[in-house]
Amino acid sequence: MKVTVSRKAHFNAAHRLYRKDWTDEKNQEIFGKCSNPHYHGHNYELIVHVTGAIDPETGYVIDMKVLKDLIKVEVEDRMDHKNLNEEVPEFFDRIPTAENIVVVIHQLLRPHLDSNHHLKVTLFETPRNYVSYSD
Amino acid sequence: MKVTVSRKAHFNAAHRLYRKDWTDEKNQEIFGKCSNPHYHGHNYELIVHVTGAIDPETGYVIDMKVLKDLIKVEVEDRMDHKNLNEEVPEFFDRIPTAENIVVVIHQLLRPHLDSNHHLKVTLFETPRNYVSYSD
Amino acid sequence: MKVTVSRKAHFNAAHRLYRKDWTDEKNQEIFGKCSNPHYHGHNYELIVHVTGAIDPETGYVIDMKVLKDLIKVEVEDRMDHKNLNEEVPEFFDRIPTAENIVVVIHQLLRPHLDSNHHLKVTLFETPRNYVSYSD
Amino acid sequence: MKVTVSRKAHFNAAHRLYRKDWTDEKNQEIFGKCSNPHYHGHNYELIVHVTGAIDPETGYVIDMKVLKDLIKVEVEDRMDHKNLNEEVPEFFDRIPTAENIVVVIHQLLRPHLDSNHHLKVTLFETPRNYVSYSD
Amino acid sequence: MKVTVSRKAHFNAAHRLYRKDWTDEKNQEIFGKCSNPHYHGHNYELIVHVTGAIDPETGYVIDMKVLKDLIKVEVEDRMDHKNLNEEVPEFFDRIPTAENIVVVIHQLLRPHLDSNHHLKVTLFETPRNYVSYSD
Amino acid sequence: MKVTVSRKAHFNAAHRLYRKDWTDEKNQEIFGKCSNPHYHGHNYELIVHVTGAIDPETGYVIDMKVLKDLIKVEVEDRMDHKNLNEEVPEFFDRIPTAENIVVVIHQLLRPHLDSNHHLKVTLFETPRNYVSYSD
Repeated sequence: MKVTVSRKAHFNAAHRLYRKDWTDEKNQEIFGKCSNPHYHGHNYELIVHVTGAIDPETGYVIDMKVLKDLIKVEVEDRMDHKNLNEEVPEFFDRIPTAENIVVVIHQLLRPHLDSNHHLKVTLFETPRNYVSYSD
Repeated sequence: MKVTVSRKAHFNAAHRLYRKDWTDEKNQEIFGKCSNPHYHGHNYELIVHVTGAIDPETGYVIDMKVLKDLIKVEVEDRMDHKNLNEEVPEFFDRIPTAENIVVVIHQLLRPHLDSNHHLKVTLFETPRNYVSYSD
Repeated sequence: MKVTVSRKAHFNAAHRLYRKDWTDEKNQEIFGKCSNPHYHGHNYELIVHVTGAIDPETGYVIDMKVLKDLIKVEVEDRMDHKNLNEEVPEFFDRIPTAENIVVVIHQLLRPHLDSNHHLKVTLFETPRNYVSYSD
Repeated sequence: MKVTVSRKAHFNAAHRLYRKDWTDEKNQEIFGKCSNPHYHGHNYELIVHVTGAIDPETGYVIDMKVLKDLIKVEVEDRMDHKNLNEEVPEFFDRIPTAENIVVVIHQLLRPHLDSNHHLKVTLFETPRNYVSYSD
Repeated sequence: MKVTVSRKAHFNAAHRLYRKDWTDEKNQEIFGKCSNPHYHGHNYELIVHVTGAIDPETGYVIDMKVLKDLIKVEVEDRMDHKNLNEEVPEFFDRIPTAENIVVVIHQLLRPHLDSNHHLKVTLFETPRNYVSYSD
Repeated sequence: MKVTVSRKAHFNAAHRLYRKDWTDEKNQEIFGKCSNPHYHGHNYELIVHVTGAIDPETGYVIDMKVLKDLIKVEVEDRMDHKNLNEEVPEFFDRIPTAENIVVVIHQLLRPHLDSNHHLKVTLFETPRNYVSYSD
């Protein structure tokens, strides 16, 4: 009897999409205005989904308060009000596309969860664009 | 050609999280302010998802009106404006966590649906916390 | 040049609508299922709107962080995960309708704001019902 | 490492549910007010989900701009501000239920996507009713 | 002490924008694709706002259940699943723009409310376009 | 008979809050993490409200398409995917707080509207923080 527990969180950040090994023209051609050298930013809305059995003693799959605090430490404290390209080491050599950010968040959270739990992460870059990644 | 049909509904209820076989201190330690003996409450938002083949005659998997009425009888009439711990028998001996509520709702709806249909239930306890359970 | 700054917050609470000086039948007739003696509850969504001149030094009408903390102390800490009828003194002799709750919240916040600021409070009792009150 | 990229879009259309080979009474009995001969309409909210590997060069599964433009050409230009029964050939002989519309949209988009990509389409007919279909 | 009580409702309808006394070309020039002769449609989201004093006996400005039922009889029963141009007499000689619809709804509700109450009506034609009208 | 017409739009931008004439310590003390020298960013959601009489010929206060295009030229083309501090001249000597941004947007739109129309602008900096400014 597996139940999925989902918790929403959010953070604001600046980023730009570009590759150092490409010319400015190539970056502009591939990434368009997302490659603006002065950066732009988003209100990222995050949903973390943990799937597992209900603990018969507490009726919980995972305590939402524990999950909320984990997201704060591992994601919000690292990324909120930050420039992803300049201040978050995971993106020093990785383009901060929504796809790459969602995989990085999955990798940051995974070691802190029960190995029997399944983890899926969803990330809204704008209200109309979002991505998800799961085990 | 399987299509999933989803219908949203909602109900308001009071509850508290506690176990009679634990001391007040233990309940407070595990469930925190959710264990308040005077109860608190939520606007529960419910989504019922039914997956099956499209009936070639009607173009429906299931008539939304039938599904809406089923949710009203089996869920809203039992739980809306109720105290889950005191008035809903399924929770007399089961802690009304979101996880347990979603499983109970699944069990209440399941017998009324076609056995070839797959059933998933999603329950929002707050706009930031939700759970889901499926066959 | 007056700008309105709005900040959303939320709290969960249990309540019931009834008057001690009415019979159960009269309470049931006037308040219907909202009068259930075992209580029911809501996720209250709150919006606090402060209108004033922009401070030319900071570009702020009011620091959102200050407003967020004020809402936490004056509203969330008093009402979140509480039973309004039993645990919030303002409702010991006042029916906790959405209308009365929004006026109480206005009265709790007003003394902490600049007297030149205009204050409006909006309270969602459900996603379909809400109320507002202003100076 | 498969990531799902989701893009929202929308269109407004009129439709009615009915079968030419049924009597008016039978149409009314099965489809109720959705069978109104003068039509009614909806703001359809569409979500297109594409799942695939991240391209290591760009950090994209699929360029969101490309996906947005594809949805415009294949769905919005055909269906926005249209009468589905009268003006969209796919529904000349198919009842425009939400289930049938979501399958048609899937069929319109599928040939334009990489064969290694998995495609799921979600369609909201109203804020409370939605359907989804996937490969 | 005036409080505003707001209630949301919704209805689905088909319409087109056109004037019989204009040529098709003129209608197309002014109203664009909204003038499609085969109609298109919307999920109209309606918010009715009633402002008045709190009744000290009940704590209500107006009973939400009464307001909900009034909206059902005066608006939903007339307009839901209808073709506004063809089936709603108020639009036989009035173009069903959002502006005109919101004024008509105001006129339908106004006679049923206390003359001391202030009435405002908000109508969403799409999630991005809405109008409002008040006494 | 004055009706308000509202149109939503959005743009993404990077910004930081700081004053050149203050020390880094003072900027940090007043603006906190919003003063991060590497910038952060938001998905700004914008609502433009125009109030005026309904034109009896068209049933419009203002053509929504005209309003949508005006917002695109005057706001989105200037601010979308931009760094407000570095690339938008209005903020070279004005701190880009939400309050200052909403006033600037009002000033950019005002000259393009009928002088008999009333203009209000609402700007969401995050889903929980927003500001508004009107004539």
